Order: sequence, then structure tokens, then C-alpha cells
Amino acid sequence: MHQLTQQLNFIWELDRLKAVYRQALVQSDGNRRENSAEHSWHISLTAHILHDYAEESVDISRVTKMLLIHDIVEIDAGDTFAFAEQTKLDEQEAKEMQAANRLFGLLPDAQFQQVKALWMEFEEAKTADARFAKAMDRILPLLQNMRNQGDSWARHSVKKSQVIARNKYLMNLAPQLWNYVCEQIDIAVQMGWLQDE
Amino acid sequence: MHQLTQQLNFIWELDRLKAVYRQALVQSDGNRRENSAEHSWHISLTAHILHDYAEESVDISRVTKMLLIHDIVEIDAGDTFAFAEQTKLDEQEAKEMQAANRLFGLLPDAQFQQVKALWMEFEEAKTADARFAKAMDRILPLLQNMRNQGDSWARHSVKKSQVIARNKYLMNLAPQLWNYVCEQIDIAVQMGWLQDE
Repeated sequence: MHQLTQQLNFIWELDRLKAVYRQALVQSDGNRRENSAEHSWHISLTAHILHDYAEESVDISRVTKMLLIHDIVEIDAGDTFAFAEQTKLDEQEAKEMQAANRLFGLLPDAQFQQVKALWMEFEEAKTADARFAKAMDRILPLLQNMRNQGDSWARHSVKKSQVIARNKYLMNLAPQLWNYVCEQIDIAVQMGWLQDE
Repeated sequence: MHQLTQQLNFIWELDRLKAVYRQALVQSDGNRRENSAEHSWHISLTAHILHDYAEESVDISRVTKMLLIHDIVEIDAGDTFAFAEQTKLDEQEAKEMQAANRLFGLLPDAQFQQVKALWMEFEEAKTADARFAKAMDRILPLLQNMRNQGDSWARHSVKKSQVIARNKYLMNLAPQLWNYVCEQIDIAVQMGWLQDE
């Protein structure tokens, strides 16, 4: 197939991420569920705004691309709540790998390899770029829950330790943001939005 | 105000772009209206996928940031249909400048200046980066209309010459994409989706 045709088919397929709905609510739009496409936009921009808090060297261009692509696999695999049971999360991981191969595989081969490698780097969260990207994907839902009376935390009886574990990428990478997150978690416990165990 | 507080207030304010609805429809989600946040995600990723077609030097990192921020002003100014009357478009321009000052003004001063300058560069569309960004913002609606029986073109009796004028940024910058756009416009006229004058 012609290279441009492959690329345009991929771009068109992306439209479907606008139909994948997450647990978070969009307060400014009547508390409807948030979709993964607008979420991806929001965290990509969040990364730009908070970039200077990273105390390790972080390539914002790579981070942004990771964040733009990180949820595409949900077109096939759907969104699983971050605090689901471990067996569900393991199943989700296998589904997402298949999804990555089918969806990124719509691209010409060189781009397929490049995008898939970047997605894997995000998933593995070992490099500073990937850890910063993960941190942005996690700090925004915290901000959303704090502004919305605990929202998905409260609805799903989430524990303090689970939120700390999800945000741990910030600890050494961006200590000032990590301190902010810890303060917010303490407030959430006081308000009864998070369970203290 | 503390710098982080200002930044988090800005990031939170961004949530409102998810409630600004455009003319384009999301086919994969029951043909509901598309919002400007998910649109911004889609064109940012489109820029990455089509970057290699640019025949002038284009900094994809700057282009992406432009596309992530370009519609934020719509939080205050709303979305105006691309093919509205000129007086409406002029009014919109004034409203968007006010919006840029209020919204980007939520950020600490150095970031405010930087983000506003980048938004102005996009609006003026003189640099190669800005022209490529504009081109991405325009090629995607074309793709959406072509996949959806002419959609907003047909509903608003849009003319062929108007669509050509909107996509002209591609002409010298990415000739292969420009040729594709011209072919699609001819098909749209044949199908009766665009008016030939």
C-alpha cells in the first residue's frame, strides 16, 4: 500500500480514541466521563507546563510524543481502571500488546517500529523521559479528583497507599511536585476521599 | 502567588476546552460534535506522523507545542466556524487576543510570555513551523469531511475555493500532501459535497 495511504488510515483510526471513556469526569462539561483523546491532550500540555520541575534531564519532545501515543492501544483494549485487581491489570497488559501490534502496525514499517518502541519505553518506565511521562499521566487524575470531591477515588474506595504507589515516579525525578502530591493525598485522607489503612 | 499554584490553576482551567464543541462530528462516537481538546490531540499526533512530508526545515517539537496550545483561547472566545463571514472572523480575532491575555496570563510571567509568543506565531503563520502547524489543523477536518459524506462542508454550502484557500499552507511546504488535498477536493466536488463556482 502507498505510504501516505497507510499513514492517513492510521490517522483516521485514531478518531476512535475519542470514544474510549475513562473513570475521570469532566467537571466543566456537566461531569460527563472524560475520553482518552482529550485526556492525552491535557497531560501532553501539562508536561510542557511542569517540565522545569524535573531535576533529571528530560527531553520534552520525546515525553510529549509518548503522551500523545500512550493511550492509542485502548482503541482495541479499552480503558481499565487504574486501581483494578491485579489479574485484571495483567490481562489488560496482554490485550494492549496485541493492540499495539495491530494499531501501530497500520503505519509504514519504519514508523511502526519507532512508535512501538516509544510506547514500550513508556510502559516500562525505566528512562527519565518515560518516568516523567508516567508522572504526568498520574498527577492530572489526582488534580481532577481533588477538585471533584474525591470522585473516582471515593466511588471505588481507593486507598492512600495505592495513590502513593501510582505517583512514586515523581519522588526523585521532581521532588517539588512529589511534595505537592503528598500534601494533596493527606488532605484527601482528612476529607474522607481516600482510605487511610 | 506561588509559581506552582499558578501553573496548576492554568492546567485546571484547561479542562474547560473539553466543553468547547466544533462543527466536525466524531463518526466513531455516534456522530456527536467534536470538542477542541480531542481535536488538538488528534492534530498534534497527525503532525508527528506527517512530519517527513515537509520539504522545508520544521521543528516538530515547536509545531506540537503550537498545536497543543492553539485552541486554548476558545475557552473564552468560543469556536467560530472556519467558513463564517469575514466580519464574524474579525470579531473572533479580537476576542481571541483578549482570551490569550487572560488565559495564558494565569501562568507565571516567563511562561506567559513564551506561550503567548508561540500562539501569536501560529496565528501569523509566517514561519515554516507555524505554516506546518496550520496545515495540520486544516488537513484533518478535510479528512473528516471526506470520510463523512462532506459533513460540515455540505451542511454549510462551502465552496471549493474556500477549502483550497484554507489548505494553501501545504502548497510549497509539503507538495505531496498538497497534491493529495487537491485530489480530495476534486472528488468532493464530483460527489456534490463542495460547491464548484
